[in-house]
Amino acid sequence: MSESEEYRNPIPTVDIIIETAEGIILIERKNPPLGWAIPGGFVDYGESLEQAAMREAREETGLDVTLLEQFHTYSDPDRDPRQHTITTVYIAMAHGVPEAGDDAKNLALFRKESLPSPIAFDHDKILAHYFKFRAGKGRIEIFP
Amino acid sequence: MSESEEYRNPIPTVDIIIETAEGIILIERKNPPLGWAIPGGFVDYGESLEQAAMREAREETGLDVTLLEQFHTYSDPDRDPRQHTITTVYIAMAHGVPEAGDDAKNLALFRKESLPSPIAFDHDKILAHYFKFRAGKGRIEIFP
Repeated sequence: MSESEEYRNPIPTVDIIIETAEGIILIERKNPPLGWAIPGGFVDYGESLEQAAMREAREETGLDVTLLEQFHTYSDPDRDPRQHTITTVYIAMAHGVPEAGDDAKNLALFRKESLPSPIAFDHDKILAHYFKFRAGKGRIEIFP
Repeated sequence: MSESEEYRNPIPTVDIIIETAEGIILIERKNPPLGWAIPGGFVDYGESLEQAAMREAREETGLDVTLLEQFHTYSDPDRDPRQHTITTVYIAMAHGVPEAGDDAKNLALFRKESLPSPIAFDHDKILAHYFKFRAGKGRIEIFP
């Protein structure tokens, strides 16, 4: 292991499940891995997770969101095929009409019964946990 | 901002609140910032947060812990005076007699009423949230 690898760390990210009157917002990715994804992105140095979540939501959907809850932090080394990222997932709410940001091909609203396919990363698992949580079935099993 | 700073990320860490029959384990730090702290450390690239939590608990207390719950992820840029770290805090349980690892001056067991002082980092806040949670007063207020 080289010296630079020795100090390599997983990269912190955030994802934001944005609830609107018409469903949750998902984004169709323009770049690999292709598919639909929860809006999110990298956390900047000096920025809290909450600041990053609000910033990324705005950049990717054009909406100012209200954070409701920190849901869970996912860290499986294989969850992103490009590199090891750790994501802290927030639940948020927003009003208004979302518009896709520059790095999205498309953006749409979905209900549990009408999720698109394919879903990128481990976001299918995250969304399954989220809908279970919202159905009042408690927090997720964290050591699957 | 130089190119290297531009891509600087906060560093992911874990902390583990280890419950034993005699109380929770805290460690007295040998290096600055001095004081008592929840056992924890850096997450390695390619390692999940859960793996890191079990490894760090073993290295710092000599105990094999059972993880009970992912509690919360804290990310205030000022929480560690040395650099911007993000910590995901786990609640775990363990049996046996803990022994301080190499980078600890001391190790002891504490109850809510008998916490030591000073407590390093933002661990006083984390412990206050933890004892509130264990008292059945719900999850913490995440946007203080």
